[in-house]
Amino acid sequence: MSSPLRITSPDNPRVKAVVRLRDSRDRRATGLFIAEGFREVERALSARLRLVELYASPEILGFDLAELSRRLPWPKDAGDASVFEVSANVLKKMAYRSEPEGVIAVLEQPRWDLDSLRCEAGDFFLIGVGIEKPGNLGAMARTCAAAGAAALLAADAPIDPFNPNAIRASTGAVFTLPIISGTSDELIAWLAAKGIRILAATLAPDAKPHTQATMTGSCAIAIGAEDEGLPAAWIDAARASGGSAVTIAMHTRQVDSLNASVAAGVLLFEAVRQRAGG
Amino acid sequence: MSSPLRITSPDNPRVKAVVRLRDSRDRRATGLFIAEGFREVERALSARLRLVELYASPEILGFDLAELSRRLPWPKDAGDASVFEVSANVLKKMAYRSEPEGVIAVLEQPRWDLDSLRCEAGDFFLIGVGIEKPGNLGAMARTCAAAGAAALLAADAPIDPFNPNAIRASTGAVFTLPIISGTSDELIAWLAAKGIRILAATLAPDAKPHTQATMTGSCAIAIGAEDEGLPAAWIDAARASGGSAVTIAMHTRQVDSLNASVAAGVLLFEAVRQRAGG
Repeated sequence: MSSPLRITSPDNPRVKAVVRLRDSRDRRATGLFIAEGFREVERALSARLRLVELYASPEILGFDLAELSRRLPWPKDAGDASVFEVSANVLKKMAYRSEPEGVIAVLEQPRWDLDSLRCEAGDFFLIGVGIEKPGNLGAMARTCAAAGAAALLAADAPIDPFNPNAIRASTGAVFTLPIISGTSDELIAWLAAKGIRILAATLAPDAKPHTQATMTGSCAIAIGAEDEGLPAAWIDAARASGGSAVTIAMHTRQVDSLNASVAAGVLLFEAVRQRAGG
Repeated sequence: MSSPLRITSPDNPRVKAVVRLRDSRDRRATGLFIAEGFREVERALSARLRLVELYASPEILGFDLAELSRRLPWPKDAGDASVFEVSANVLKKMAYRSEPEGVIAVLEQPRWDLDSLRCEAGDFFLIGVGIEKPGNLGAMARTCAAAGAAALLAADAPIDPFNPNAIRASTGAVFTLPIISGTSDELIAWLAAKGIRILAATLAPDAKPHTQATMTGSCAIAIGAEDEGLPAAWIDAARASGGSAVTIAMHTRQVDSLNASVAAGVLLFEAVRQRAGG
């Protein structure tokens, strides 16, 4: 890391540019995003995302920037990244969190799309349909990465995996897991073209209990938003694909469903269990 | 339902008493809590909790109180409950949510304790250790009720299952599921006295994979808070009880754990699967 420039004025245009990246439109327009705090920055660098700018406040960190670069998995090709030492005030102005940890990175978003998504025999996927809240999307990404799902596909919702709350809920999973959005029609057509069976999670009592559905081989588990459930098109697509509607049987009528993230976890780890032959 | 009294002044002492119930100290002192919105009130009444007061705004509801009582599972012994028609303004002042649905009930909290908890052979339990956030506690209660756990035991955290966020995240599960708090020592002693095996969830790679641990018979699954993990006392108690430390194996090092609510769901529904002989 070269000797850093120092920013002490909250009116510096770079400070304003970082603050603007809180806005999803700005993230879309620039293709950049912000990782905040040591752990998030560390995970983004470990994931080999391209570092564009790094801002650090030794005053908040308790150590200097040379020490910071020793502690971080500093990329070999980071020569063109701009590194700035900033005052505590400036860092607090840039930070999204109320008690920032002293380091903020601006990085390039990884780009994923269905056309270039590598897809191998036996891969499994999670499809979130109508999942709008960044925190829920992030939590699902975390569970996908933990379970070894090949990608998280998001249908019919304007998603932004690089929203600060999505990043945080994912504990960095959005840095490595392909997350791709499209309409239900687009995603169903892609799955059909790849010959991937669909398991459509539903609350319908006549659906197959999830532990009796075959989740080995190439398959995709589709889960709807809690209030809306899964659109009928997914149930039809499941049947047409050789898969089925599946349900997590509820023990009591007093509770009629699980939280969508929890349901995703239960289904993905049932797939993992079946794949391990457990 | 008898003909309701009408409150139009936000300064009415009853309005202030309801607002005070937002404070956990007031809930503890009075043994009361608030259910808000049609669905929550309906579930609380279905759970046969004692209704103390009901406040409704026909203006917000779009129908009158006679119609409301027809739509709700009105308790036969509700003769002593006070029913009030309130103006939209008054209801909005009472409400915790920013866009209230028009009905608020004050109800008696169900009381649970370890001494009187009915415990049958083969029951299974979830133990949340150090789970402080009401939303997480509520989400765990929802999953417990869905899976058929006998109770949610909360160790080493000041919990309040009747916090509005806990009620909401539980979708009403806190109305029926026994939720009992105590120190780790107290809960471990109670489990030992009942001969209940403990399965201690941990991230330690030498722990038994969760699908290989026996989750049939009387058992309790203990999960720690995400940042702290499970205290060593629980790992020791698991061994002493004839249970074991268990882990949900992670597919990748990039993600080192699941969200605590998701982990609870994966473990509880693995117990359900094993119990069904699946």
